[in-house]
Amino acid sequence: MTADLGPFPGVDGHDQAVELDGADPLANQRARFRIADPELIYLDGNSLGMMPEAAAADLEAVVQHEWGSRLIRSWREGWWDLQLEVGDLLAPVIGARPGEVIISDSTSVNLFKLAVAALGAQPDGRRIITDDLNFPTDIYVLGGIADWLGGEYSVEMVPSPDGIHGPVEAIENALADDVALVSLSATCYKSAYTYDVSRLTAASQAAGAMVLWDLSHSAGSVEVDLGAAGVDLAIGCTYKYLNGGPGSPAFLYVRRDLQTQLSNPITAWWGHTEPFAMDLTFTPTDGIRRFHTGTMPVLSLAAARAGIEQVARVGMGAIRSKSVALTQFFVDQTHQHLTPLGFSLASPTDPARRGSHIALAHPAAWQIVQAMIEQAKVLPDFREPDVARFGLSPLTTRFIDVHTAIVRIARLVAAGAHRRFDADRAGVT
Amino acid sequence: MTADLGPFPGVDGHDQAVELDGADPLANQRARFRIADPELIYLDGNSLGMMPEAAAADLEAVVQHEWGSRLIRSWREGWWDLQLEVGDLLAPVIGARPGEVIISDSTSVNLFKLAVAALGAQPDGRRIITDDLNFPTDIYVLGGIADWLGGEYSVEMVPSPDGIHGPVEAIENALADDVALVSLSATCYKSAYTYDVSRLTAASQAAGAMVLWDLSHSAGSVEVDLGAAGVDLAIGCTYKYLNGGPGSPAFLYVRRDLQTQLSNPITAWWGHTEPFAMDLTFTPTDGIRRFHTGTMPVLSLAAARAGIEQVARVGMGAIRSKSVALTQFFVDQTHQHLTPLGFSLASPTDPARRGSHIALAHPAAWQIVQAMIEQAKVLPDFREPDVARFGLSPLTTRFIDVHTAIVRIARLVAAGAHRRFDADRAGVT
Repeated sequence: MTADLGPFPGVDGHDQAVELDGADPLANQRARFRIADPELIYLDGNSLGMMPEAAAADLEAVVQHEWGSRLIRSWREGWWDLQLEVGDLLAPVIGARPGEVIISDSTSVNLFKLAVAALGAQPDGRRIITDDLNFPTDIYVLGGIADWLGGEYSVEMVPSPDGIHGPVEAIENALADDVALVSLSATCYKSAYTYDVSRLTAASQAAGAMVLWDLSHSAGSVEVDLGAAGVDLAIGCTYKYLNGGPGSPAFLYVRRDLQTQLSNPITAWWGHTEPFAMDLTFTPTDGIRRFHTGTMPVLSLAAARAGIEQVARVGMGAIRSKSVALTQFFVDQTHQHLTPLGFSLASPTDPARRGSHIALAHPAAWQIVQAMIEQAKVLPDFREPDVARFGLSPLTTRFIDVHTAIVRIARLVAAGAHRRFDADRAGVT
Repeated sequence: MTADLGPFPGVDGHDQAVELDGADPLANQRARFRIADPELIYLDGNSLGMMPEAAAADLEAVVQHEWGSRLIRSWREGWWDLQLEVGDLLAPVIGARPGEVIISDSTSVNLFKLAVAALGAQPDGRRIITDDLNFPTDIYVLGGIADWLGGEYSVEMVPSPDGIHGPVEAIENALADDVALVSLSATCYKSAYTYDVSRLTAASQAAGAMVLWDLSHSAGSVEVDLGAAGVDLAIGCTYKYLNGGPGSPAFLYVRRDLQTQLSNPITAWWGHTEPFAMDLTFTPTDGIRRFHTGTMPVLSLAAARAGIEQVARVGMGAIRSKSVALTQFFVDQTHQHLTPLGFSLASPTDPARRGSHIALAHPAAWQIVQAMIEQAKVLPDFREPDVARFGLSPLTTRFIDVHTAIVRIARLVAAGAHRRFDADRAGVT
């Protein structure tokens, strides 16, 4: 079955979408990305961003010229500092200064390195505070560290009051001078709840704790000013709103004055003052490179550069404005077309507390997501147990995409097209 | 100045090289690699292997089709298991079984994970033994772990008797029941000394220690049979003799029966039984995936596949025979042409104890290496303080390359062409 894929000029919201797109100062950014199937409405840029054409071109040059021809000489000709250079490109996107950000390892490994480094600098604290909205792997990593350091350390997972909003007051109440570290996702992976980074940073530091923010769902979608907020540490991935490519290497941020005070537990050659002296003694270097470890996957790193550069060039002010307008339009259209069909908003209603994706709960969310993908050319993702998650990428998602997707979904659900996946869902759960 | 780049038909060794190439069963493998400059003699495949044409083609498909068009759907269509699949391709190259090898992180991060895991399983031992021929970063990582886990742990660096050969007997003498871990490079980065993996594995295990071999300079050049030797743990990189591309992700091996007994200290979602259940509790999975952490750099991983597959297809028996013949011819030609000019062999004379690169010491090695690169189109690398290191990659290096390179070097040094770099060297040291 091929559904009517739209657009839907007669349907409420269509003209507003056209108007919003017409007035969108970022409308021209989409042309810089590969659009392989114009009918596909891709709403999973919060998992894997679309491909900047410049990334493909950059990668081709690296493969053909740098690896294929220059070979080992390319290390001196650019590869050696690439993770610092791309880190510096990313810095203004998150309010950091040059030399405070490096592209390195995966988000999980970076969290491990920086959380251990923070604990090492906090000899008196033994409590680690997070919340139950955090990406589970962050909680796993923190728990693993506590286990390795022995029973004295504990990870406290402060519960969200409603599964949507961050437990701000409860975290503030939990702060005390025995808290070593507060580690949270600035924007939560499921509900898109977005913390007031300044407020919790200040409160944590006032209690003597260090703060480590995971910016995976924020970088490139939410304005975060690490410098103004005085944040200690941050990590994040580059393959979501930064459009860095599948599994592109992650980033880490260490505030400049902390760089010499903290120790990277994975003491490897890229963090040495003179990596090629081949000293048998480890002497950590002073800058952000101290928190790096081994050789970077250059091809993935080189491909990540274009997306990061584009976000930095457009600027987070304009990106955030578009993001807020997109999510608000999505929420309005949901109320109009999807609430009557049993969907409910599982993201904050306050745009200031919301990232760039929208979670909708529905008892048959799993089946509906399958039907969207197979029959309606709408690509969201599903999160257990009952959430469809729609990523609205400010550089690639148009307002008309939001309208068309929601009407496609409404028609599909109204027609009961998702019911044929009931048996599959029974098999999954 | 452009020197006479050869070949040198009148010069001793030339006819032997031609004969050896003519009889080489692997001679046809070189055609599968990008040869951008036929005059360049690339002898640094032990740092960065040449580019398999198939790697470029594979990567193009991943970029254009999988990222560019299929987007997030590619995770289900192949990316999710790619690091296991490429691990299984690599397994026979190092004598491992399917499910014992995974491509993951960098070599340094893998060493960290497995060394910590080993220590966790050895409650009584506190001594970690290595040697001073090990790649320095391995020593740094082990030292960092000892520091992180507290003062009870010590790293003992057993010295080589001569800077070339591994201190086998001294290591055996150091073994005792308070040794938790023995961690060595199977083939040493500088001299190419190659341990008898079976002998030291057995001795270590007899003393109650676990063994962790770094195979970075062995995989794809030396026959290592982890299974037959009963090795506990191994790690290594894929960008040297496996030709995986710049900074291509590393591998790790955990013997099957140990996989459930050991704990990965970086407890992240890719090591969870059900990564997408988004449980708040970490439940480690049973297989080799337990030792993985976060999302892999897919582009670099996909590009690494072709080189690994080629090595596996050719087989390590044939590769090792070619490697031994190449290094022996290099040594013979060195004695003939370079020893009279002040070079001395800084690698073992016994081929059984030698990897696939040759280290030559010379008081002016630094200057000579610069001259080789700039004037003689020979690309080796330099290691402090006085070693030129020549990587002979069995799949890409021809015997005629060895002869031509050595004659080019001999002529250059005989003419004193390297002396013009004396001032630069003074600036470096």
